[in-house]
Amino acid sequence: MGVEETMHSEPFHFSVDVYYEDTDFTGVVYHANYLKFFERAREHALGQEMLVQLWRERGLGFAVYKVEIDYIEAVTFGETLNIRSTYELVGEYRLCWRQEAWRSEGKKAAVTAVIQIVCIDNHLQLRPIPTDVLVN
Amino acid sequence: MGVEETMHSEPFHFSVDVYYEDTDFTGVVYHANYLKFFERAREHALGQEMLVQLWRERGLGFAVYKVEIDYIEAVTFGETLNIRSTYELVGEYRLCWRQEAWRSEGKKAAVTAVIQIVCIDNHLQLRPIPTDVLVN
Amino acid sequence: MGVEETMHSEPFHFSVDVYYEDTDFTGVVYHANYLKFFERAREHALGQEMLVQLWRERGLGFAVYKVEIDYIEAVTFGETLNIRSTYELVGEYRLCWRQEAWRSEGKKAAVTAVIQIVCIDNHLQLRPIPTDVLVN
Amino acid sequence: MGVEETMHSEPFHFSVDVYYEDTDFTGVVYHANYLKFFERAREHALGQEMLVQLWRERGLGFAVYKVEIDYIEAVTFGETLNIRSTYELVGEYRLCWRQEAWRSEGKKAAVTAVIQIVCIDNHLQLRPIPTDVLVN
Repeated sequence: MGVEETMHSEPFHFSVDVYYEDTDFTGVVYHANYLKFFERAREHALGQEMLVQLWRERGLGFAVYKVEIDYIEAVTFGETLNIRSTYELVGEYRLCWRQEAWRSEGKKAAVTAVIQIVCIDNHLQLRPIPTDVLVN
Repeated sequence: MGVEETMHSEPFHFSVDVYYEDTDFTGVVYHANYLKFFERAREHALGQEMLVQLWRERGLGFAVYKVEIDYIEAVTFGETLNIRSTYELVGEYRLCWRQEAWRSEGKKAAVTAVIQIVCIDNHLQLRPIPTDVLVN
Repeated sequence: MGVEETMHSEPFHFSVDVYYEDTDFTGVVYHANYLKFFERAREHALGQEMLVQLWRERGLGFAVYKVEIDYIEAVTFGETLNIRSTYELVGEYRLCWRQEAWRSEGKKAAVTAVIQIVCIDNHLQLRPIPTDVLVN
Repeated sequence: MGVEETMHSEPFHFSVDVYYEDTDFTGVVYHANYLKFFERAREHALGQEMLVQLWRERGLGFAVYKVEIDYIEAVTFGETLNIRSTYELVGEYRLCWRQEAWRSEGKKAAVTAVIQIVCIDNHLQLRPIPTDVLVN
């Protein structure tokens, strides 16, 4: 890679249905559950099989170390969200994801997040991001 | 259908991926989460759009009133489960679902359940199962 | 205790508050969450510190292998439930818990369950229940 | 209140035990669950009874609209976290909470968050923060 080169991804699209379990008594999706939706999308973007191998064969996993999340519109039971995800490698140790949840008729994202990921081994020690697994 | 006719369904198939969120520190799917998987499958079997309409227009929803669940094999991160679901109408007030979670190479179901459902209105009063919405 | 003596426990009491996260859009506690409430109560009945030691030092954990649960009354946001738990050792390999969730003014239990537990090692192999840790 | 006066709270302390349900297969607390822990702490700080009344009698609830969260140390099964929470009223419409999760022997917080809350009515319309309920 050259001087200003960085590793960043094309957008990934992933679909999430909103079930009973995702809502609370106010009628809308419970705020913590978007972090689950975004994680599911990241797992599919990277490939679950690869993540399983990485953990079993190399003892490496990804961990969230910083999240900024904005809740713009409430989402209700029975809706389908399109999760749009991109990532950028920042230095050797950080994978920065930008993720958005779009309602099917939405003119803007309903929820947006910047989620910083690090790589840890099975003793919880920080390791460089294994960039070989990022090449799609 | 004849004299002893009853309303029962063909098997529905629904696929569930196992994410980080579904496991616990022992390495396998947390037992309560199968109830979520089974509910997602039931919602798709009946149709989420229909369930939303039923709630909004007629004030009716389905509620679980009895569960029997057997855990036969543990399931790990990254696996995909096939959820097989059938239902039978029992009397006017009860929908009895038989649901099974199968691993991709499984010779038998990993988890099986019998889940009894009733219909309640938005004042939590029992109502007959709205059989018109069950006809696929 | 006589010839056929068995190991069974006094009732344990544990209190659970119902939060936003526990409810769904129908306004009441989501059915799968009672399994979480019951597990929290079992962990306190046995002692979390003991469970951590058992896992770290002897590689043993408890796993749910069968649940029967009856939902009698719906419970809403902001309520406090009293979880009443007893267990009985059945043979060498099975711990049978009877657990009930009581509302504060309840005349009967709102939710009741019979939950069968086995002991597994960290290779997911069945082991006899470690009865030494059950003596309170 | 005078010119520079603002409404802010004393620190609230709330205790959270880490159960099976809170962990994932990597052995530590799943990242989204801290948002649940922080919400439980906020509900106790404000009073669950008051929140129930506010919803039933005035049709008002609180909603999260922005979260920044930093994960500094991983937390494992069986630990007890002390959640330290303070809030500050920002303008008429925003309640800004600073919340920290401390391990029992921690020299610094394991997880910290700034969580911005708004008030919405039961038609999901923005309303001024009902400051009368904030006076402890």
